[in-house]
Amino acid sequence: MSDPLADYVERHRERFLQGLCDLVREPSVSTDPRFGQAMSRCAERVARQAEAMGLQARLEPTEGHPCVVIHGPPVPGAPTVLVYGHYDVQPAEEPSLWERPPFEPQVEGDRLYGRGASDNKGQFWAQMCALEALLKVRGGLPLNVRMIVEGEEEIGSPHLPALLRRLRPELEARVAVVSDTSTAVKGRPTLHYGLRGIVYMEVEVRTARMDVHSGVYGGTLPNAVHVLSGILAAMHDERGRVAVPGFYQRVRPVEEWEKEALAALPFDEEGYARWLGVRRLHGEEGFSTNERRWFRPTLECNGIRGGYYGEGSKTVVPSSALAKISARLVPDQRPDEIASLLADWFASRCPEWACLEVRCCEAASPYLLERRGGSEVLFEAARQAMRRGFGQEPLFCRHGGSIPIVEEMRRELGVPTLLMGLGSPDDGIHAPNEKFELANFYRGIVMAAALHEELAERLGR
Amino acid sequence: MSDPLADYVERHRERFLQGLCDLVREPSVSTDPRFGQAMSRCAERVARQAEAMGLQARLEPTEGHPCVVIHGPPVPGAPTVLVYGHYDVQPAEEPSLWERPPFEPQVEGDRLYGRGASDNKGQFWAQMCALEALLKVRGGLPLNVRMIVEGEEEIGSPHLPALLRRLRPELEARVAVVSDTSTAVKGRPTLHYGLRGIVYMEVEVRTARMDVHSGVYGGTLPNAVHVLSGILAAMHDERGRVAVPGFYQRVRPVEEWEKEALAALPFDEEGYARWLGVRRLHGEEGFSTNERRWFRPTLECNGIRGGYYGEGSKTVVPSSALAKISARLVPDQRPDEIASLLADWFASRCPEWACLEVRCCEAASPYLLERRGGSEVLFEAARQAMRRGFGQEPLFCRHGGSIPIVEEMRRELGVPTLLMGLGSPDDGIHAPNEKFELANFYRGIVMAAALHEELAERLGR
Repeated sequence: MSDPLADYVERHRERFLQGLCDLVREPSVSTDPRFGQAMSRCAERVARQAEAMGLQARLEPTEGHPCVVIHGPPVPGAPTVLVYGHYDVQPAEEPSLWERPPFEPQVEGDRLYGRGASDNKGQFWAQMCALEALLKVRGGLPLNVRMIVEGEEEIGSPHLPALLRRLRPELEARVAVVSDTSTAVKGRPTLHYGLRGIVYMEVEVRTARMDVHSGVYGGTLPNAVHVLSGILAAMHDERGRVAVPGFYQRVRPVEEWEKEALAALPFDEEGYARWLGVRRLHGEEGFSTNERRWFRPTLECNGIRGGYYGEGSKTVVPSSALAKISARLVPDQRPDEIASLLADWFASRCPEWACLEVRCCEAASPYLLERRGGSEVLFEAARQAMRRGFGQEPLFCRHGGSIPIVEEMRRELGVPTLLMGLGSPDDGIHAPNEKFELANFYRGIVMAAALHEELAERLGR
Repeated sequence: MSDPLADYVERHRERFLQGLCDLVREPSVSTDPRFGQAMSRCAERVARQAEAMGLQARLEPTEGHPCVVIHGPPVPGAPTVLVYGHYDVQPAEEPSLWERPPFEPQVEGDRLYGRGASDNKGQFWAQMCALEALLKVRGGLPLNVRMIVEGEEEIGSPHLPALLRRLRPELEARVAVVSDTSTAVKGRPTLHYGLRGIVYMEVEVRTARMDVHSGVYGGTLPNAVHVLSGILAAMHDERGRVAVPGFYQRVRPVEEWEKEALAALPFDEEGYARWLGVRRLHGEEGFSTNERRWFRPTLECNGIRGGYYGEGSKTVVPSSALAKISARLVPDQRPDEIASLLADWFASRCPEWACLEVRCCEAASPYLLERRGGSEVLFEAARQAMRRGFGQEPLFCRHGGSIPIVEEMRRELGVPTLLMGLGSPDDGIHAPNEKFELANFYRGIVMAAALHEELAERLGR
């Protein structure tokens, strides 16, 4: 049975792909002030491309980067769906590791290469293309649609909660849809019903007024890198568990049905390790690899610098050292509680001869969409839409990443979120040589269009 | 009794100072390829300024930066003195920490500010001015003088041993003179009879093919920063001792006469700690501060980098981390032996799931001029010269820094070295806001000139 939505997507592939390339071409790196102009340009481009599809769009200013707000044509009496995406991308450092320039999108075979191709430009663009397909094929949308495409996801969405509060009447919806994850298994559509939260901190040690000559003074004063290393080395015990007392206190155990779903999930652990290029997978003892990345919290140093770390040698005793440290949180851990637990523990590990400063930079709660209490219809609509887009039964599982906005939408708007990601596990998001699978792109457009119809059918007027 | 050498220096202060400023103005940072042009320019300037004084000078190419070779007028039958200095300087990073631009020399009160003012431009320039004073006041030099001013001291003098071997007939001498240290106490002339050696290494940990998203993958793979921190944290025990077995094996105990000299040395430990800006001095238990910096070896991380350490946040699991690590060595530790001891130990501390690479970048033996076996006359000539230049009894002690060339001159040319430094302990060499005390500069010129006369008197024809 031919699906007219799928036919439409098939016929307009090239144009949809070009629209995506135009977005990837903008180096919209939100964390780096040097890319401020590209940020505004990219936001404007999203709005212009939405208008070209027959949608209403405007740029909503924030204290940071602007947010694009898009409206579908009004459907009086119908429920509202809120679609979320982000046009900002991770930095693309280390040019030597990129096989192609990160902001010059290139199609090779079934893949589109470029920073942001998968995270998140390809995914929110698929959601936009779906609206065009519905408008063109069905002559209208089955629901009221609001879409927000923000510019600060990669820096923790600092200004979005305020925006959601301010625009609450406009954005109120029965359900939110977010395509900003990867399928759990390559090519298998996946509904993620849970996300990890995050606490991101900077921990800085200072031991002296300045770096001094390690020959003239070395042996008489504390070394900031040694102090910081001592703290980092104590973060985990020998079993790979986080050694900060109380860290695991609120962690929900993996439920039986979840264990069964995990066991049934196709997972090539050896291939996974090979892709990462590790000698051995590593982490908390007593849990499987997928449990460790989706159901267990972590504490990780994301980066470190101290003393002289440039080219060549410089013989100094470092007077300061900085670590970027983040914890990934799972239900029911609370970011504020963990942040304060960590700050206290770092302080307790710092010897009296050093100064420690802990700055909490980002915090987001973990998210869980429970499979009871009225959310069953959401699960079912998502399942049907994924079957229509991908021709396969979807997987249900949790996700290891953090999308702060999902928890924010629950808190600020009271809206539950369907996470229907179109990325592939090997896309290399946040890494060099990011790419996006075009099969997921085209099927994702059909899935996203179908979802509106499935939701309209189940949520009624 | 007026000293005609001192009078001459007094009259030509301004000109000597201007010559020094001209040298400081060259950003001759040997470790950084961006300053290649400044390196050659600086070497040429040294040679030109020597010629203007009536000395012979030429640039001697090496595989790295050129070395300036200077000759005094021949004094047939007289012994030869070899004077050593270096025109290269440490990098001057972190512009925000410099109160004045590092390569725009500025006189304020009795100080000259600028990178390299003390280490080593002011000091070797004082040695050159002394030759001019002797030529002008006495009409000639009392000894044959060779002077080499190299451009690679701050990167470990990699090409100087080969040069010394090549120029051995030209550079053979009874004694070498090096002004590249600071007086042990501010204003008190000091003969340093020992130096620490050094082994400088880069230790790199790799755990995966690339940095990956800490949400999607975090908890399943090893973190290179954690591995490296664990190694660094284990380098010292709780008593501040280096925990690498065998590290202290060849360390000479502090001799009784040295302990007495140390005890007699004026040392304001509180002022020293205050100047460093430390909460508390720190190091190997059981030794005094001065013992720790002059008589005891150290193992120190000079710098570290890993994962994302730039502005803002990037949530990755780092796949690599690099530490620059150096050991300061004392007699009779052997650099090769310690390098291999350390490399083995680092490897033994690296878990099986990580790859470790250790690169040894620099090595220099410690140096000791014994006070017996014919060297007594050298001590005495130095003592008299320092009395004539500074009007005070000098101190005798060891030094914590490493001047690889001193040991090289002993090995390649068989020549012992008198270390008669003109720096002040608070000059901030290798640190921001380096300065040079002009009193030491002018007195040092007189001292250096007097030394040639005192040596000539004692070494005979």
